[in-house]
Amino acid sequence: MPKTRKKVAVALLGLGTVGLAVAELLEKNRQLIESRVGASLELKSALVRDKAKARPGLPPGVVVTDDPSAVLDDPEVDIVVEVMGGFEPAYAYLRRAIEGGKHVVTANKAVLAKHWDDIFHLAHDRSVDVYIEASVGGGIPCVQAINDGLAANRIERLTAIINGTTNYILTGMASNGQSFEKALKDAQAHGYAEADPSFDLDGMDACHKLAILGSIAFDQRVRVEDIHLQGIRGISKQDIDIARVEMGCVVKHLAMARVRRSDGALEVQVVPALLPLDHPLAGVDGVNNGVLVSGDAVGEVLFSGRGAGGGPTASAVISDIIFVARNVAVGVAGRVPSIPYDVEKVQSRRIVPAEEISNRFFVRLTAVDQPGALAAIARVFADHAISISSVAQNEKEKGSTVPVYVSTYSAPERAMRECVAALERLPTVRPNTLVLRLEVPEA
Amino acid sequence: MPKTRKKVAVALLGLGTVGLAVAELLEKNRQLIESRVGASLELKSALVRDKAKARPGLPPGVVVTDDPSAVLDDPEVDIVVEVMGGFEPAYAYLRRAIEGGKHVVTANKAVLAKHWDDIFHLAHDRSVDVYIEASVGGGIPCVQAINDGLAANRIERLTAIINGTTNYILTGMASNGQSFEKALKDAQAHGYAEADPSFDLDGMDACHKLAILGSIAFDQRVRVEDIHLQGIRGISKQDIDIARVEMGCVVKHLAMARVRRSDGALEVQVVPALLPLDHPLAGVDGVNNGVLVSGDAVGEVLFSGRGAGGGPTASAVISDIIFVARNVAVGVAGRVPSIPYDVEKVQSRRIVPAEEISNRFFVRLTAVDQPGALAAIARVFADHAISISSVAQNEKEKGSTVPVYVSTYSAPERAMRECVAALERLPTVRPNTLVLRLEVPEA
Repeated sequence: MPKTRKKVAVALLGLGTVGLAVAELLEKNRQLIESRVGASLELKSALVRDKAKARPGLPPGVVVTDDPSAVLDDPEVDIVVEVMGGFEPAYAYLRRAIEGGKHVVTANKAVLAKHWDDIFHLAHDRSVDVYIEASVGGGIPCVQAINDGLAANRIERLTAIINGTTNYILTGMASNGQSFEKALKDAQAHGYAEADPSFDLDGMDACHKLAILGSIAFDQRVRVEDIHLQGIRGISKQDIDIARVEMGCVVKHLAMARVRRSDGALEVQVVPALLPLDHPLAGVDGVNNGVLVSGDAVGEVLFSGRGAGGGPTASAVISDIIFVARNVAVGVAGRVPSIPYDVEKVQSRRIVPAEEISNRFFVRLTAVDQPGALAAIARVFADHAISISSVAQNEKEKGSTVPVYVSTYSAPERAMRECVAALERLPTVRPNTLVLRLEVPEA
Repeated sequence: MPKTRKKVAVALLGLGTVGLAVAELLEKNRQLIESRVGASLELKSALVRDKAKARPGLPPGVVVTDDPSAVLDDPEVDIVVEVMGGFEPAYAYLRRAIEGGKHVVTANKAVLAKHWDDIFHLAHDRSVDVYIEASVGGGIPCVQAINDGLAANRIERLTAIINGTTNYILTGMASNGQSFEKALKDAQAHGYAEADPSFDLDGMDACHKLAILGSIAFDQRVRVEDIHLQGIRGISKQDIDIARVEMGCVVKHLAMARVRRSDGALEVQVVPALLPLDHPLAGVDGVNNGVLVSGDAVGEVLFSGRGAGGGPTASAVISDIIFVARNVAVGVAGRVPSIPYDVEKVQSRRIVPAEEISNRFFVRLTAVDQPGALAAIARVFADHAISISSVAQNEKEKGSTVPVYVSTYSAPERAMRECVAALERLPTVRPNTLVLRLEVPEA
């Protein structure tokens, strides 16, 4: 038996909310964590931008530096934990760490989504561990669950709420009767949304996370560019109310990847959608995240919990540190790849272009309230070969225009897009159409 | 770098529903599974009781034998997969496999709950891997989630629905208006309950599983004898209806382990309980299982899915086979213990004796419908220092006796037991009392 190590040294890249939470949790639960590692863990150093900044929560003994070399070239550091976020310099530092033979734990969804192949090939080449649990779903161990726990399954479908900001806003509109603007302000006040919330609201954050989960679940690279993307802007409180009353549905911002039955191609999208109230994700509210996975053997499995915040993210980061440190302690780190990225690709499916993806739709039109308006609208749907399943109008609405809600059977995105363009050319329809997906099985 | 293996050989102990499902799934998803292992997997042999029995689902090439030595002493077998169930001879075979240096995957909750320490000590001694995902929660990777994914947390509370049979019966009574007897027959007809359903109905199955989850979550041995146990017999459809209408609750058979705030002691119980409709486990219906874990960093995390059946269990078993086979392939199996059982025990809490556990209660009394009956009942509760939070009577009930439902604030089990004995000594109360726990936070 090779000798076992008594101490494993860790360094942090970044000491923001997550970095500090990692340092604090490591200290708070040190005994527990070290007993699980089987060796002592030393948090040796942390790379920051501003060395002078006060960090009252930081345990004593951690060297705080603004010199990347002091961390990345320190031969005593075994594990580099990247919690800076953003593309650069995070990616450059990660590469440098791996090239130097350091094992890596990262929460950086943007870098992973963009540089997936490069990171894992480099890690394989240098025989280092790369663990990524904290990049998706906060404290929910969903990466591990899909990568390992469900590894015997052919995954058929992945449906997830993986952006806490949009979920908080949609829940606020649904439960507290808030307008979109009010719910967004509320999210910002609670620290759940950035001053510039575009990255969350327009879906790019969820896109990065879906690229990561999809790449694991389907054993093939899913790129951000492959994902059909629509954010949640334009959804009103009234839309949510109508979805509830008329359709028995909640509105959620969903990240979905599914294998198309007809030809096995992969449909990947981040879109707002209606879910029936008894859907497993319908009750995932507020800043919570939920990941629903369908495998051919296991059926449907749901994972849910807090999707963001210092505590949950630190929980995931340290779970990964424990994995790697255990390996380091007994001298097997880098031997079993955490993500089997480099194996023969047994599933290489075509990824369906956005406009070929088929969905059911729930469409809000702004129509002039006059006889024949509905007939003209129905005609346009028929002309685009889209079958209508129901139509609802909010009777309380007064004025020259009324919102008309049309739900449809399954149709390709392209047909729907062209249909909306044609609808808005009608003299009785105003250009304010909202298109949501309707995740209700056809009868 | 040590050389890597090209082939890993697996043998099954048992070819019942689960064993056959494992063999079939291994065959069906072979390419996928082997790509995740990084080596080929050979299902070499299977130990059965009756060699002559027809097994049309079994892939060709598997040697079926009734001679334990042909499997356990075969030097070519790397991994022994035990899916026989029952205490013996399963435990004897498991020991023999481990003593022979074979790695082990087991779904056997009874053996694990009883022989936990012996199995893991022996495994450590012989440097072999022991993986146990399929022993709890069917296809839900909850063992891994608690053991690894949440390993950075001090677990505060674990609440779970981990017996599909009782959950199916309670759901049938709640949703389909079935009587207990009808729901049980229905479960038996669907293969969800045994001809002798005692093991499930009386809670022993859930007890074994809670002993396993508790031993992992709390870093200390939780034994079956430590668990306060009550099955679901005696619960009527009417009780479930009243719980819903009067309390806004569903009735679930819960496995719970929680750290008592006052002194850090551990309360462990398998009991029927009322859960509010918005509780994360309230929607876990039918044969589904759900595991809700509260950690100090992560908050609440829920895992749910199919808790039994060939497919889900095979999914968990093969997930474990992949872990072990990956380790075998690169020569590191047995080096990192799957369960850190043998480390310095940082948490060694007193386990609270059953009658000292405090719960809120929901009590059904059968009372004679006459003036003063309720006053006498209330008096007895007060005499036992149990505060009543509400009282409900089913007004539709006719006849000389009526069910009276009393919900209480928190009180020790002993006080409740003595209170029930005193109540049943009242001339106005008949001896047919049902005591459920009320998992609703006190206001």
